[in-house]
Amino acid sequence: GGLTHFDQSGQAHMVDVSAKTDTHRIAVAKGKISMQAATFKLIQEGNAKKGDVLGIAKIAAIMASKRTSDLIPLCHPLAITRVAVDFELQEETHSINCTAQVETVGKTGVEMEALTSVQIGLLTIYDMCKAIDRGMVMSDIRVLEKHGGKSGDWVSMID
Amino acid sequence: GGLTHFDQSGQAHMVDVSAKTDTHRIAVAKGKISMQAATFKLIQEGNAKKGDVLGIAKIAAIMASKRTSDLIPLCHPLAITRVAVDFELQEETHSINCTAQVETVGKTGVEMEALTSVQIGLLTIYDMCKAIDRGMVMSDIRVLEKHGGKSGDWVSMID
Amino acid sequence: GGLTHFDQSGQAHMVDVSAKTDTHRIAVAKGKISMQAATFKLIQEGNAKKGDVLGIAKIAAIMASKRTSDLIPLCHPLAITRVAVDFELQEETHSINCTAQVETVGKTGVEMEALTSVQIGLLTIYDMCKAIDRGMVMSDIRVLEKHGGKSGDWVSMID
Amino acid sequence: GGLTHFDQSGQAHMVDVSAKTDTHRIAVAKGKISMQAATFKLIQEGNAKKGDVLGIAKIAAIMASKRTSDLIPLCHPLAITRVAVDFELQEETHSINCTAQVETVGKTGVEMEALTSVQIGLLTIYDMCKAIDRGMVMSDIRVLEKHGGKSGDWVSMID
Amino acid sequence: GGLTHFDQSGQAHMVDVSAKTDTHRIAVAKGKISMQAATFKLIQEGNAKKGDVLGIAKIAAIMASKRTSDLIPLCHPLAITRVAVDFELQEETHSINCTAQVETVGKTGVEMEALTSVQIGLLTIYDMCKAIDRGMVMSDIRVLEKHGGKSGDWVSMID
Amino acid sequence: GGLTHFDQSGQAHMVDVSAKTDTHRIAVAKGKISMQAATFKLIQEGNAKKGDVLGIAKIAAIMASKRTSDLIPLCHPLAITRVAVDFELQEETHSINCTAQVETVGKTGVEMEALTSVQIGLLTIYDMCKAIDRGMVMSDIRVLEKHGGKSGDWVSMID
Repeated sequence: GGLTHFDQSGQAHMVDVSAKTDTHRIAVAKGKISMQAATFKLIQEGNAKKGDVLGIAKIAAIMASKRTSDLIPLCHPLAITRVAVDFELQEETHSINCTAQVETVGKTGVEMEALTSVQIGLLTIYDMCKAIDRGMVMSDIRVLEKHGGKSGDWVSMID
Repeated sequence: GGLTHFDQSGQAHMVDVSAKTDTHRIAVAKGKISMQAATFKLIQEGNAKKGDVLGIAKIAAIMASKRTSDLIPLCHPLAITRVAVDFELQEETHSINCTAQVETVGKTGVEMEALTSVQIGLLTIYDMCKAIDRGMVMSDIRVLEKHGGKSGDWVSMID
Repeated sequence: GGLTHFDQSGQAHMVDVSAKTDTHRIAVAKGKISMQAATFKLIQEGNAKKGDVLGIAKIAAIMASKRTSDLIPLCHPLAITRVAVDFELQEETHSINCTAQVETVGKTGVEMEALTSVQIGLLTIYDMCKAIDRGMVMSDIRVLEKHGGKSGDWVSMID
Repeated sequence: GGLTHFDQSGQAHMVDVSAKTDTHRIAVAKGKISMQAATFKLIQEGNAKKGDVLGIAKIAAIMASKRTSDLIPLCHPLAITRVAVDFELQEETHSINCTAQVETVGKTGVEMEALTSVQIGLLTIYDMCKAIDRGMVMSDIRVLEKHGGKSGDWVSMID
Repeated sequence: GGLTHFDQSGQAHMVDVSAKTDTHRIAVAKGKISMQAATFKLIQEGNAKKGDVLGIAKIAAIMASKRTSDLIPLCHPLAITRVAVDFELQEETHSINCTAQVETVGKTGVEMEALTSVQIGLLTIYDMCKAIDRGMVMSDIRVLEKHGGKSGDWVSMID
Repeated sequence: GGLTHFDQSGQAHMVDVSAKTDTHRIAVAKGKISMQAATFKLIQEGNAKKGDVLGIAKIAAIMASKRTSDLIPLCHPLAITRVAVDFELQEETHSINCTAQVETVGKTGVEMEALTSVQIGLLTIYDMCKAIDRGMVMSDIRVLEKHGGKSGDWVSMID
């Protein structure tokens, strides 16, 4: 198969999904941000009481999922019916994982919404800690699984 | 130092930059997306003639930089004065690097704008190729260097 | 019952409404802005001929309803099917009431859309008159009634 | 008939479409931008290799269609299911035509989305060439045809 | 004086501030939301550990201040240099006060930004608690004080 | 000169204006919408009392100018300091002219903001009257004059 976002003559378009049926669709995406041990510790402590970096990053991640079709040129707008975002603290590697699950009942999948959510969740962590650790790195941002629609279930082989 | 996005009592705020001077600020961020060899080849060919994935990703990356303060909760709005986005095709690893340079004359740095630009540039590549390669992974998204402002120059040790 | 916007472990999420049926939903919200007698008179006169403060506030109120899910973090996006906004001039108290009725056919209610509409309607009045009356006060912003959905009809006991 | 965007008493509202059925709706809009011969030549050449003005204008046109209800006060939000934008180079008049076809499955038509797409497509051409030709003119922006909904098919008599 | 948002002939415009000097401007706005005792208690407890309603409302309030000129038709866009939002729990009246302080260095004041921030902060509390207390009321939203600009200092007589 | 929105190698970028000085800049744009005599009459009457099409179109035009850099990919964001929009009723041709004057004190011109304002002003008229006259046509949208900046004054030869 070729790239569906281009028509026969190689011109970009927003793919026609008019005839697709509305089905329940789910996508899960994940990524991580790696940082210095001291930065990790500050976030870890903040999370428990004050200076809640992850609480703010979660809100940013949820809100960003609603902006996906504004940001990605050929992405269809759709009405998200659920977003859940989780962070896992990985002490040994002083990194933080972000996982986002997005759902809809519609004509297109929500992989892009889940990935946007993870990206902006991680980026918000970067923003809040950059004054003390400008060298943080975001990696391994990918789709873990998706369900629903004509192509059905798909699960990533990695992770 | 602690996390500047929280005040003494641990409450989140948008940091006061009222007294900062307007200086010329530059930030460069970079990241990559890895894919299957066949996907890489399709992008490579498209770039030369029709089906211009990277041309569209570049526009998305530039436009996203202007949305940064809408997406990142405690990020100050600022008037960007330059954005340049480049893609490099890495044939041996079938991955594509995205580098964004953002500039402003203002009171705060543009690292967040450069990172947002890279993230959305890579994500647009994902969107346009996901129908043939859902397992693409985005990694190594980080700031390479920044200049201007009170903290002056900073260059990443990696890369 | 507890706060539905948090899961079992107290984490914020956008509530899962995937399995809800699309029903016709209506919400009515109301609020008022109080001002000096002279300000009230200017608006009253403007309304009749030139300097149409309330005409502009109505447009702002209608447009704001469409932005609700952009502004409220855990609010589901939905496709509004009707918005009507009305202003009542209360001469004796020199205040202006704003009432907004919003409707949709969807999986979630439109109380938030109706309240956002009222808030921005009143705030636009404030903006247009603040040069002559900075002390205006907005009050009594609440939902009057809602219909549709699983929880059915609800009517406010006050007013 | 009168202007449906006003109620009996002449007050603006977003028309009630709650009871309308979801049908497949299509609209096609068109417009042109006229320029100097030298400007036309630059775009024509760029299109073939580097400096791809029309590729960028196409992306802007597609993205703008998704913003229509943000821009037009009484326009209903809806979920677009297809957007295709084409440019035709008219050598003899050194003008460029832009045609946008937008589709949805919903309660209201997509004429406004198609027109917004054409306007912003043409305006992006203006932006990219204004440094060499500030006198470019955009004209003949109109709906060519629409299908679906209660009012059914409509085709413009001109062109 | 009359309403500055209208010109001589009564037509609305965005007032000309081109010749104004950039000065440091501050505005403080305040408002409250009243609720049932049980709702108040849930928020109070959540604030201390899990289910952090006020943490989320604070982020929404800060982000909303950046959207002010998108929402209020004749409001000038400006680059905010500081936002701080605080909530006070009023146990005796089971209400919550929201205070927002916004600053800029610019040509226009930030009263509208502070009021928008308070409105959306209160509205987010409403959203998160509406499933258990639909009758909450938002009141007393007003500017407390403003500083800077040609009109100088102003302090509200009430509160 | 060539197209400044592309670099030496033909790649699109947001042009570097970091070194430009902030000057007072003004742009005036104009366009028209042509319609049936009956439609023209309805607008004309509405303008005088109820059903104020042009009042709403004016607000939409002013608000749209603030969205320009969101819509046009390579357009710099800037802080508008004035917007004035006027409509002229042309009885003999049953068309309506829209003129927008936009000003800023900044590093780039405001031609794009003035053109966006005119486009959306005309498009809002279309929206409000399309139920009775789908064949309306928007034409002659262009910049009339611009002042300020390095390129100084420019006045259109037509009109």
